[in-house]
Amino acid sequence: MPLAVVSKDGKKRLGKVFGDHVVDLSIADPGLPSDVISFLEAGGQAIERFEAVQADSAGALALDAVTFHAPLHRPEKFLAIGMNYGEHAKEAVSLGYEAPAYQLWFNKQVSCINDPFADVVMPRVSADLDYEAELAVVIGKTCRHVTAADAASVIGGYMVANDVSVRDWQRRSSTMTLGKSFDTHGPIGPWLTLAHEIGDPHALRLRMLVNGEERQNDITGHMIHNIYDQIAYLSTVMTLKPGDILSTGTPSGVGVAHEPPRFVQVGDVMRVEIEGLGHIENTVIAEPA
Amino acid sequence: MPLAVVSKDGKKRLGKVFGDHVVDLSIADPGLPSDVISFLEAGGQAIERFEAVQADSAGALALDAVTFHAPLHRPEKFLAIGMNYGEHAKEAVSLGYEAPAYQLWFNKQVSCINDPFADVVMPRVSADLDYEAELAVVIGKTCRHVTAADAASVIGGYMVANDVSVRDWQRRSSTMTLGKSFDTHGPIGPWLTLAHEIGDPHALRLRMLVNGEERQNDITGHMIHNIYDQIAYLSTVMTLKPGDILSTGTPSGVGVAHEPPRFVQVGDVMRVEIEGLGHIENTVIAEPA
Repeated sequence: MPLAVVSKDGKKRLGKVFGDHVVDLSIADPGLPSDVISFLEAGGQAIERFEAVQADSAGALALDAVTFHAPLHRPEKFLAIGMNYGEHAKEAVSLGYEAPAYQLWFNKQVSCINDPFADVVMPRVSADLDYEAELAVVIGKTCRHVTAADAASVIGGYMVANDVSVRDWQRRSSTMTLGKSFDTHGPIGPWLTLAHEIGDPHALRLRMLVNGEERQNDITGHMIHNIYDQIAYLSTVMTLKPGDILSTGTPSGVGVAHEPPRFVQVGDVMRVEIEGLGHIENTVIAEPA
Repeated sequence: MPLAVVSKDGKKRLGKVFGDHVVDLSIADPGLPSDVISFLEAGGQAIERFEAVQADSAGALALDAVTFHAPLHRPEKFLAIGMNYGEHAKEAVSLGYEAPAYQLWFNKQVSCINDPFADVVMPRVSADLDYEAELAVVIGKTCRHVTAADAASVIGGYMVANDVSVRDWQRRSSTMTLGKSFDTHGPIGPWLTLAHEIGDPHALRLRMLVNGEERQNDITGHMIHNIYDQIAYLSTVMTLKPGDILSTGTPSGVGVAHEPPRFVQVGDVMRVEIEGLGHIENTVIAEPA
């Protein structure tokens, strides 16, 4: 069962999600950490206690009585890899991007993290708002120089992400980050599914729907650089920490690759679904004055 | 007088630096916040109390009895702008980079932040280690959509930075960040000079010395995009927060622009000095096995 950050009456708490309800962990087991990074840092001990929480444990809350929040609101890093599915890489090359010789990593600024069902803002400075369905990996252990063979052991869990992109600002600079980092453009969730609950993270189907119409549909096994190679490559450079988010790339079908482009508009609903991880759904709104 | 993070006997505390000694603020005024981000968030009230601390206040520590640390070790963002001094932009173009049409922002990962006098590691995977002397701006107030005219009001202070760069890894990807983010490659300090102590941040001389030999020497007024325009541009996209670091670009004279390149070697000492802000000095060491 997944680990969620929920609120009721304005107070955030961790919860364990059971189909039709969520158990408030601050009631079911007050000894558990109160945020996801501390939970991951606590490691196996926290996971054991979490596993012991049952559907009928104290602290049940109806799903529709709570608000779901981003499982992590202030990780140290929020990195994403570009052009990492074969068919999407081809469509990006057709738009003028150079095929990358190495893993192409950029930052989504941490400040763009958004809740799984919250609104996404169309910036006043652009109309080129686009979606990217992605599987997000959450690091579970502080690590450096991890081999691909050992990489599974440092993964804390998985989430659904939408790498919302402002295409004209993305194209302004080769470094991409500003077009990827407008406030609200990093919705994640709806919860964190712990790594041991997922067998092979490369066998998951992911889909993007805009107003119910399917725009992207692929399986995570079609990544060019798989998750373990991503962790090995990044950890050659930097220490990864519990809570760090790696968004693992998007398949083909993004709005900008249509002819003419099919950007999202105010009022559109973007929904990303990943097999076994749930879905997130965000409505586009105009930027408030 | 500047605000520093120092340690003695393993305990970190904030200090106010007076020429030959530092006053431990946890003793001089226990009501002050205990870290720089909380200090900035507290705003004018904290600054007033800080101003009231005198050279003869309780808690004096000899400078050589303390270790200076990075003023910020976990800001939300650590951004840097590329090709932002005219002569440096020319040398970068001569190396094959395209002259940017817009401000060119990339991330240094927060995990690369290093202390002002700590060692910098030559990665096992590269020999192309280079230096970049930079003025770092620290944001003082949560803000969005700041005009250039108002930008000075959101600056908390200034530091010296060395944007240590691994040139071959930087060139691997257009997004640059991996070549800018190896662990230890973001030394900052030696302290935070509060904004009101500096008149015009565009009139400061900055220099880079390698083993005492001057390699870079320019004034901050030669930036292509000045600090206020940087804040206006970034805040069009994202909320800036107290503690966010903006490294404002490097002048000409980097190692890679020499013919042949003059990269730093194990044992070399890199020193960055900025007028009125002090200096940082870091020795290159081999990566431990």
